[in-house]
Amino acid sequence: MANTVTPLSGFPERLPSQRIIEQQFLDTLREVFELHGFASINTRAVEPLDRLGGQGEDADKEIYGVSPVSGGGGNDPAMGLHFDLTVPFARYVLENAGKLTFPFRRYQIQPVWRGERPQRLRYREFIQADIDIVDTGKLPFHYEVELPLVVADAFSRLPVGEFRIHVNNRKIPEGFYRGLGIEDITIVLRIVDKLDKLPAAAVRDRLIEDAGLAAEHADACLALAQIQADDTSFADQVRALGVEHPVLDEGLAQLSAVMEAAAEHAPGLLLADLTIARGLDYYTGTVYEIRLAGEEGAPSVGGGGRYDALASDGKRTFPGVGISVGVTRLLGLLLDERGLTASRETPVAVLVAVNDEESRRDSMRVAAALRARGIPTLVAPKAAKFGKQIQFADRRGIPFVWFTGADGDQVKDIRSGEQVPVDAARWAPPAEDLRPSLVLPAARE
Amino acid sequence: MANTVTPLSGFPERLPSQRIIEQQFLDTLREVFELHGFASINTRAVEPLDRLGGQGEDADKEIYGVSPVSGGGGNDPAMGLHFDLTVPFARYVLENAGKLTFPFRRYQIQPVWRGERPQRLRYREFIQADIDIVDTGKLPFHYEVELPLVVADAFSRLPVGEFRIHVNNRKIPEGFYRGLGIEDITIVLRIVDKLDKLPAAAVRDRLIEDAGLAAEHADACLALAQIQADDTSFADQVRALGVEHPVLDEGLAQLSAVMEAAAEHAPGLLLADLTIARGLDYYTGTVYEIRLAGEEGAPSVGGGGRYDALASDGKRTFPGVGISVGVTRLLGLLLDERGLTASRETPVAVLVAVNDEESRRDSMRVAAALRARGIPTLVAPKAAKFGKQIQFADRRGIPFVWFTGADGDQVKDIRSGEQVPVDAARWAPPAEDLRPSLVLPAARE
Repeated sequence: MANTVTPLSGFPERLPSQRIIEQQFLDTLREVFELHGFASINTRAVEPLDRLGGQGEDADKEIYGVSPVSGGGGNDPAMGLHFDLTVPFARYVLENAGKLTFPFRRYQIQPVWRGERPQRLRYREFIQADIDIVDTGKLPFHYEVELPLVVADAFSRLPVGEFRIHVNNRKIPEGFYRGLGIEDITIVLRIVDKLDKLPAAAVRDRLIEDAGLAAEHADACLALAQIQADDTSFADQVRALGVEHPVLDEGLAQLSAVMEAAAEHAPGLLLADLTIARGLDYYTGTVYEIRLAGEEGAPSVGGGGRYDALASDGKRTFPGVGISVGVTRLLGLLLDERGLTASRETPVAVLVAVNDEESRRDSMRVAAALRARGIPTLVAPKAAKFGKQIQFADRRGIPFVWFTGADGDQVKDIRSGEQVPVDAARWAPPAEDLRPSLVLPAARE
Repeated sequence: MANTVTPLSGFPERLPSQRIIEQQFLDTLREVFELHGFASINTRAVEPLDRLGGQGEDADKEIYGVSPVSGGGGNDPAMGLHFDLTVPFARYVLENAGKLTFPFRRYQIQPVWRGERPQRLRYREFIQADIDIVDTGKLPFHYEVELPLVVADAFSRLPVGEFRIHVNNRKIPEGFYRGLGIEDITIVLRIVDKLDKLPAAAVRDRLIEDAGLAAEHADACLALAQIQADDTSFADQVRALGVEHPVLDEGLAQLSAVMEAAAEHAPGLLLADLTIARGLDYYTGTVYEIRLAGEEGAPSVGGGGRYDALASDGKRTFPGVGISVGVTRLLGLLLDERGLTASRETPVAVLVAVNDEESRRDSMRVAAALRARGIPTLVAPKAAKFGKQIQFADRRGIPFVWFTGADGDQVKDIRSGEQVPVDAARWAPPAEDLRPSLVLPAARE
């Protein structure tokens, strides 16, 4: 075995204290997803390569192939690691359609792999947390209203600071362009999508030259793509541009419904944002993008939208709406860039000191009593001097040290130094000390 | 995209109701591991191939290689999917040794991959749940006593029926063989390990012919390998064979200490079992094997032992003790063979009915109030007839349906038919209905 160990670029791993943060994030996402009625599924890491190829907007993702080192594999198809959770979910729905109940609400929290060049907040292995609602035949619109509220509920419980879910609706630009008489909707959507990389003037030039738009139509498209509002007033701004089309009407009504529900259930968390263009050539209704305040230079921490066909088996088509949260990227921002830390590097709330090796059993008995009441407890590794045992707890952030004794037990809060007589059948730490807590550094000046 | 979908043999996937069982098992393992002071780590799925090769007893596992489909990969070493969690853990310890605090207690619950031919209870992708305690330099013996108690605590909380953790100690056969004057300990251990495949007479022949033992020494080795006891009386049985050696004394004392602690903390759950030979050529002290009662024909659902060198960086050596639980195999036994099921296929405890689409918001408000108090709640997908909405809940196993009304809300337990007036700010389902429960079919006659 080689003794040298070099980290692999793009495959982030966490120290135990950081992993505690990751677990709390994953727990919160799961808890909220379940509160909102999503059922968990897990799919295998590999898919046949022919299923991974040519999948919508992610067709250009670099795929990792998987094959037995010895060259075997028998009749198995060529396989690769999944690069997102949508492709395996589509396959899972087709494979199990007869056993699932629709509308099917699932969440899925798993790693995905992409053979891309690693760079800031882009990884080769990273965790995605997806929620989707799929139905057979026709998917009611109200799910497009509901989905961002689920994500808003989850993010509201995470120490991410201010965030907003930006929402748009494919039908707004599509109806608007049609109202202008534009025929090739897709090319215009793709050029407008460059607004985050190119200056507006350059985009305008391309709309005129590449898409053949009249100058005033190009200006109208750019004006549309600049509208933002935190309420339904975006619709008035669109109307003021003077374009009319039934598809535009439908899009404005749908986005207004999303904003109205958000005003009640998630006030201030949604932004009607007609500048969002990413995925508009793939999604067919509402689109979502999750952004942290103050991270304008960073890629979004999640997104999704409504699609007409997640999958089809030739007879049935499965439309749906979904949002994917980039958990590893979110943690990259919060841990590596904002300095989020955990109050300790272990789940342990109480260290039971050991007087001497002969009485280790007494300490084990105390630990068993505390664990039986749900208190994570550790027995000290050595019957060292008490100062050393306290230091052992201190180095790990364990808040309490327990001492057994012939004339009764005592527990010490090593932060305050306070020490009190206790009974292992009754004492519990304060609720806030039971689990590690997350600590954000004071706001940077 | 291909529309045909064929399951991949050896890559088990679960329906939502089965996944609920899997999640509850994983939750219980995690909870108990944390109660006992183990910290979570997750490692990347891939390791350099040269690190995966030649790793102790697993050297013959078929490895899945991983490489970018396009042929790129730059300066990255050739990589493969890990086939267990020990190899990545050893690498993680070396890579982060300066940042970890020792003794380091970690648990790790992740999938692993092996390119083997799938057969009953043997998979190509499966979840392992490992706990290990590693130290630098010297590892105190008491951890070998502690570790099986952690697993016994976890299994006692799972609906696995009767189980036992079989324990042996490498020092017992080693000391015994030395006491007989045998020099090549390893070859004898390996031949005795065949006892579960070959008749005793055949093993005896090989001990004489291949290992060169005198007939009475071969008989003594076989006698030793038949000793079992659920208390410390195994030591008397060994002594009665009349062999003496200091290493044998040490082994008997250690295994006795394990059995004594178990008598207090996990009565009836451990079996001193000198028939265990698997891994004795790799482990250096206590060895463990977890077995479900009535599954003598099945492979064990977990095991582990004490090892002198998890890893070494040339300067420091890291000894440890660990146990690995085969979660996917355990679930294969319980779900696929014993028929363990969940009471519902969704986390949802309450379905809020919808009177008409105009009042969907009222139903959403009720759902939000219930969720805010931790009750998984779903709003009905359509304002269908109430009978249909109740049927929707029934098909999924959702126990309660909530009706909103101008003259107050009511909730119906659709199992009993009982319907009572309720207030969304106060009502909660009985604790046993809040989460899906696990159901074992009545014992087979």
